[in-house]
Amino acid sequence: MKELKIMVPSSEQCSYTIKIGTDILPQVWEQIEGRFGKKGKFIITDENLAAAGHLDKLTGEREIPTFIINPAGETSKHINTVISIIDEMEKCALGRDTIVIALGGGTVGDIGGFAAAIFKRGVPVIQIPTTTVAQADSSIGGKTGVDSALSKNAFGAFWHPAAVFIDPATLKTLDDRQYRAGLVESVKHALIANSDYFEFIESNIDAILSRDTDVLETMAVHNCKIKGAVVEADPLEKNRRRMLNYGHTIGHAVEQASGYELLHGEAIAIGITGAGLIEMELGLGTKDRLERIETLLKKIGVPVSIPGNLTENKLVNLIKHDKKAVQKRPRFVLIDEIGHIHQKNGQYALNVEREIVENVIKKLKNR
Amino acid sequence: MKELKIMVPSSEQCSYTIKIGTDILPQVWEQIEGRFGKKGKFIITDENLAAAGHLDKLTGEREIPTFIINPAGETSKHINTVISIIDEMEKCALGRDTIVIALGGGTVGDIGGFAAAIFKRGVPVIQIPTTTVAQADSSIGGKTGVDSALSKNAFGAFWHPAAVFIDPATLKTLDDRQYRAGLVESVKHALIANSDYFEFIESNIDAILSRDTDVLETMAVHNCKIKGAVVEADPLEKNRRRMLNYGHTIGHAVEQASGYELLHGEAIAIGITGAGLIEMELGLGTKDRLERIETLLKKIGVPVSIPGNLTENKLVNLIKHDKKAVQKRPRFVLIDEIGHIHQKNGQYALNVEREIVENVIKKLKNR
Repeated sequence: MKELKIMVPSSEQCSYTIKIGTDILPQVWEQIEGRFGKKGKFIITDENLAAAGHLDKLTGEREIPTFIINPAGETSKHINTVISIIDEMEKCALGRDTIVIALGGGTVGDIGGFAAAIFKRGVPVIQIPTTTVAQADSSIGGKTGVDSALSKNAFGAFWHPAAVFIDPATLKTLDDRQYRAGLVESVKHALIANSDYFEFIESNIDAILSRDTDVLETMAVHNCKIKGAVVEADPLEKNRRRMLNYGHTIGHAVEQASGYELLHGEAIAIGITGAGLIEMELGLGTKDRLERIETLLKKIGVPVSIPGNLTENKLVNLIKHDKKAVQKRPRFVLIDEIGHIHQKNGQYALNVEREIVENVIKKLKNR
Repeated sequence: MKELKIMVPSSEQCSYTIKIGTDILPQVWEQIEGRFGKKGKFIITDENLAAAGHLDKLTGEREIPTFIINPAGETSKHINTVISIIDEMEKCALGRDTIVIALGGGTVGDIGGFAAAIFKRGVPVIQIPTTTVAQADSSIGGKTGVDSALSKNAFGAFWHPAAVFIDPATLKTLDDRQYRAGLVESVKHALIANSDYFEFIESNIDAILSRDTDVLETMAVHNCKIKGAVVEADPLEKNRRRMLNYGHTIGHAVEQASGYELLHGEAIAIGITGAGLIEMELGLGTKDRLERIETLLKKIGVPVSIPGNLTENKLVNLIKHDKKAVQKRPRFVLIDEIGHIHQKNGQYALNVEREIVENVIKKLKNR
């Protein structure tokens, strides 16, 4: 089992470990008992994870109070689900000496992390991510959130996990489209921080797509190192952490405009291509470099152009309301070269002229 | 205007100031604008504060988006109120660069603080407490929470304010029973930390009851110093902060058993008397000392014995489930003398034999 340590200065605990290994799920419970034996345990997972047998692998013969999110997926990422979970925890007579275990993808991690953050003023959470996007990205970093009736992530908290366990074997049962879309987060990490890692993904793309657990373990280590270093430096997203938003300005707008029919990773693939076009306009990137990135995204099987049914106007308007925007001027995270983020005056999110953005949106649509 | 600084090591901001002064409310908004001018503002208050004119005093001619809790009081301290507030903030198109201003008593502070803690992963909150209990106690310390359908404070967060403004003039419009009950928190502070302050309350009790703002300002300074020092030393209530629970073990049980017909401060007055009886049993206190404390509580006009309709069995059971209990053994915070907390092996909450507790409950009922 590989082990990484993340130092998060602002959290109560100050650090947590990420353990990575294939088929570790059956051993995880003993490790949890070893460290949190005296605490009450409560598992949050979803119907897919239960059906795929991962919940049983984790708990074995033990009887642990569990909340199974149903239906699995984004529609359940709602404050009402959190209220049902807290009610269930109360019915189980759990107190402040409880630890929550979130077993699942990004949605489960978000719901479970947020429920832990607000149950009786906060109890620790252990994240056990089971999707490509959660293992590469969302399980590390402490962002949690759920939607209101009106908007996404209206409710949320920064709540760093007490521990993370990553078992690439859990990816074997993941739906193919979800699997591929989640790989885009790994490409993003490579692009912003490590050109060797980018080459590794290029060279091993067939093994990655056939879900070779050795290669997936190596990727998990890379992803956790890259994301961990950024979160350590800026746990509350004041500046540096914004580099993780590479591809996200256009990506989020495309995701929203599609009514969330595009998966997050699919939208980010389009956003990464868009960032590449902006870099070319600003003299930060070459056509060859963008083609190299696009080739990899196409092999992964994610889109690199904007679907025909999304209008340019709508996208431009959504970009103005992006969370990184300042006074409705869109801001972008960009790279100088593969593996190296671009900075200007110490800032990671930069203003880009409106004309350039509109031009790039046009190009992204008509290719 | 008097000014105190509280250092809270675990919060994002690391410190906040408490400003205290009579009739400062009309100047507060300019101070907020001076420090948080660029942020969107959102006020949370209740119908009583609006009716008493305090909201208008705060905002003047300005049009500030405001959520008025209705009805005022404990029944609104519910997760559903927080959901309505977050929806309203979304409708006002407020983003992560928002500051919440909570103007009101403990309930408003709890609701407003918790809403701020979870709106888009947390925005700052300014507390402007307007009741004796909130000015003495709940506005400082960062505890926030609301109830679920099943239990009290099921949802909550530690969320330290960005600033606190205390205007004793706002107490003038407070209901008499609420006013008196809230004074018990000041007595509690004096008992655990400062015998001079206890004498000050004794000597000035008539001026206090006639709501003399000079005396109330002095009390606010004492309360903030005492509570601030405890919160600085132990912001997340690991040990030392438990001393603030003096009188709370029996107090909480009595409050619950009464179905919350007793106000918090009234129940704590009974709890303080109970703690005094336990101190006598353990040789930590004298009959004279307890009589002195009871005399003051009686002058304030709060109960010092358990109402006849509450059964001893129910109380003993509730005490077993107190949050300070360890394996159902009740724990108590006690004092050595007026102004000095009792410690044993560095612990502030001590086990007390069940027989002693039952005996004391009997005595508290039949006096």
